[in-house]
Amino acid sequence: MESVINDVELLDLAVIPTDGGPVMHMMRPASPLFGEIGEVYFSEVEPGCVKAWKCHTRQTQRFAVPVGQLKIVLYDDRPESPTRGRIMEVLLGRPDNYALLQIPPRVWYGFTAAGSVPAVICNCPDIRTIRRKGSVRTSIRGISPIIGNTSGRVFLPLFLGVRHAGADLCARRTAGQGGTPGD
Amino acid sequence: MESVINDVELLDLAVIPTDGGPVMHMMRPASPLFGEIGEVYFSEVEPGCVKAWKCHTRQTQRFAVPVGQLKIVLYDDRPESPTRGRIMEVLLGRPDNYALLQIPPRVWYGFTAAGSVPAVICNCPDIRTIRRKGSVRTSIRGISPIIGNTSGRVFLPLFLGVRHAGADLCARRTAGQGGTPGD
Repeated sequence: MESVINDVELLDLAVIPTDGGPVMHMMRPASPLFGEIGEVYFSEVEPGCVKAWKCHTRQTQRFAVPVGQLKIVLYDDRPESPTRGRIMEVLLGRPDNYALLQIPPRVWYGFTAAGSVPAVICNCPDIRTIRRKGSVRTSIRGISPIIGNTSGRVFLPLFLGVRHAGADLCARRTAGQGGTPGD
Repeated sequence: MESVINDVELLDLAVIPTDGGPVMHMMRPASPLFGEIGEVYFSEVEPGCVKAWKCHTRQTQRFAVPVGQLKIVLYDDRPESPTRGRIMEVLLGRPDNYALLQIPPRVWYGFTAAGSVPAVICNCPDIRTIRRKGSVRTSIRGISPIIGNTSGRVFLPLFLGVRHAGADLCARRTAGQGGTPGD
């Protein structure tokens, strides 16, 4: 897969067969995407559910999906970006798409489980989460998740493969819940 | 759960319900076990299989199990340790045992999946893996995994709940395979 949004990086990761079960790389010192790790956490998303839209003001996300299949959609709304307005869809998960996805600050993203079982994301962002009121811009609008940019001009229907009833049940507003990471 | 081996630490981690699936903490800056992260990788272990025995000379392991149930057995053979000779068994996995297990250098350990599905370990060791010939002390002896200390005096039958046929198939010697982490 090739990145179509400036500064979004996608790097294949190794899955090494060993007796009893594989070893899967994520952050390796020799990797060009290795750097400071501010925290490590997991986010599980159930089939038929969407977690969206998220946009971090300062934190860079680094995602790998060791379990399940993740469909993640990114949207570039940065005024200075040469790829402003572009949408990028990425599948993450074994065996064909086990990769590290790096999302820079101020790029919007949302995700769902693409398979029949929950997908588990491991995130190793570069700086620690700083919880400030109003600083996490997470919102969801409508049954079929759509994105609106900060000025309200752009609305993009995405996740068309997601069951609407499931989305209706699961994709409620998640901003402001105590303890969930964000910057 | 309480640690019975000196310097082994076990810390409950938060599982935060959110719409669409939980967020699970692992390494958090406010945690007493937070520190330098040398690399991040996953190790999957299938039911009926054992990965053992491992002992790192310099690297401290930090394990969390976001998926599946892990039974891990530790054995202290450090001559200077006040808990030398002790065995410690730990269960890791949601919902009751979602925790961070820190294993200091020179403590032996081995693990298996305690449930009917594979268990996935995420490891965030403190220093990066340095691959040197002979530096990874990983071995397994016999069908029912046993441990022998470096002087050959102690043999401990463990993992008694593991299906022997599976152990026979899976728990072959894994040392020296290129690319698998270890120090």
